[in-house]
Amino acid sequence: MNRQELIDQIQQKKSFLCIGLDVDLAKIPTYLLSEEDPIFEFNKQIIDATHQLAVAYKPNTAFYEAYGIKGWLALEKTINYINAKYPEIFTIADAKRGDIGNTSSRYAKAFFEDLNFDAITVAPYMGKDSVEPFLDFENKNTILLALTSNKGGMDFQTLKTPENELYKSVLKTSLTWKNSDNLMFVVGATRPEYFKEIREIVPNHFLLVPGIGAQGGDLQSVCKFGLTKECGLLINSSRSIIYAGKEKDFALKAQQEALKIQQEMEIILNY
Amino acid sequence: MNRQELIDQIQQKKSFLCIGLDVDLAKIPTYLLSEEDPIFEFNKQIIDATHQLAVAYKPNTAFYEAYGIKGWLALEKTINYINAKYPEIFTIADAKRGDIGNTSSRYAKAFFEDLNFDAITVAPYMGKDSVEPFLDFENKNTILLALTSNKGGMDFQTLKTPENELYKSVLKTSLTWKNSDNLMFVVGATRPEYFKEIREIVPNHFLLVPGIGAQGGDLQSVCKFGLTKECGLLINSSRSIIYAGKEKDFALKAQQEALKIQQEMEIILNY
Repeated sequence: MNRQELIDQIQQKKSFLCIGLDVDLAKIPTYLLSEEDPIFEFNKQIIDATHQLAVAYKPNTAFYEAYGIKGWLALEKTINYINAKYPEIFTIADAKRGDIGNTSSRYAKAFFEDLNFDAITVAPYMGKDSVEPFLDFENKNTILLALTSNKGGMDFQTLKTPENELYKSVLKTSLTWKNSDNLMFVVGATRPEYFKEIREIVPNHFLLVPGIGAQGGDLQSVCKFGLTKECGLLINSSRSIIYAGKEKDFALKAQQEALKIQQEMEIILNY
Repeated sequence: MNRQELIDQIQQKKSFLCIGLDVDLAKIPTYLLSEEDPIFEFNKQIIDATHQLAVAYKPNTAFYEAYGIKGWLALEKTINYINAKYPEIFTIADAKRGDIGNTSSRYAKAFFEDLNFDAITVAPYMGKDSVEPFLDFENKNTILLALTSNKGGMDFQTLKTPENELYKSVLKTSLTWKNSDNLMFVVGATRPEYFKEIREIVPNHFLLVPGIGAQGGDLQSVCKFGLTKECGLLINSSRSIIYAGKEKDFALKAQQEALKIQQEMEIILNY
């Protein structure tokens, strides 16, 4: 999917919500456990109930790998389901991969070609040649970790470097890489005060913002500094939406939670 | 596997060789492609031919993910084969994972419990709570990226931070984390001059050293500064061993390459 198609979808749905599909068998309604593939069944119902309110879905690969081959099959079925039934949806593999060049190429092939995700999250620590193999793919997006929302995000990302802090060095340096137009960045919602300075470095790139909801971030303050004229934000919420209900009506409960956020987003977009 | 068992194995085999199982179907002998599981068949033959010369095997997960479900099955069969037939071998999932705490726990479960690897490589960018879930596991090893051997390793890892350079901050800070005795570190062989300063920070931790062979690193100069009295090094070689031959005798060719390195290591250990 190209950038304009994503922007069109945001304008049409009046939403920039991304729903994280982090499926934990201990948290889904117990009646689903007797299904042949409970993870996929859960995802399917969540997606069917929320696809008009969200522009993106983001399965975190860790939750699938934790279930071995069965988990990978569920991931494959989930992405195939979205691509077949809702091709307008932007899909993100939250995989946080990154390795030496010939190895990163393998990950890029796995997620962009075989699974046909629109985007993948990538860790920056190994630098240019670990990221460029992802950027090579046309109409695919590489979402680089910049400033993450977890506590440990402050251990190294905000260390002072000669010109600024590490996460700003990551932002600035990545803009010099080949096909840097295909970049987006992960910036945690738990630090809305950082968005102003980040927008000075990357005024137009999309930012994927986790941390709204269970992690405690605030939508209004993120948008105050992070929003661009094309929106430029994808706000992710996982647990607070997908685990809003624990009974047979869990998908309806998820829809209600997503609707609350979408309505807040509609006001912000119209403002 | 605990540290002492690894050291015992090194002393017994007079080797600190780790063989990278980075299987590319385009590079393995073509006659294997008619097998039901060519990747596993290739690995099995390589392992059977080299297990007396190597103390560790390190499949890079990217090469398996690139083949989807079939790749994951081949990875599962490979680790199960090693654990069943050669339980003394130290196994490393070269996965370079790392995410927020509850997600890193998922990766730890997948690789330490379900697949039963002895070790996994982890990226440090997200800090303490992204790594500690791996360190929680007793008799399992978390190999943190410190200074990698690729060109992009210099983009951020050697940036000056207030006290030193980023990779040294990673080393020092990680020693303050819970269960830091379970840490090992990735340090690339292409920069042997760095080993002296690294050993001042981590005098006893094991270092996993990629970059000997195809990436051009030099065993002698790495050992000069990196070796400890318990060895403290695992030297990885992937392509130069596993692709030494392209015909039916490929496993024998791999054995001959591994033997050359093992003999060099024996001299170094006796010195």
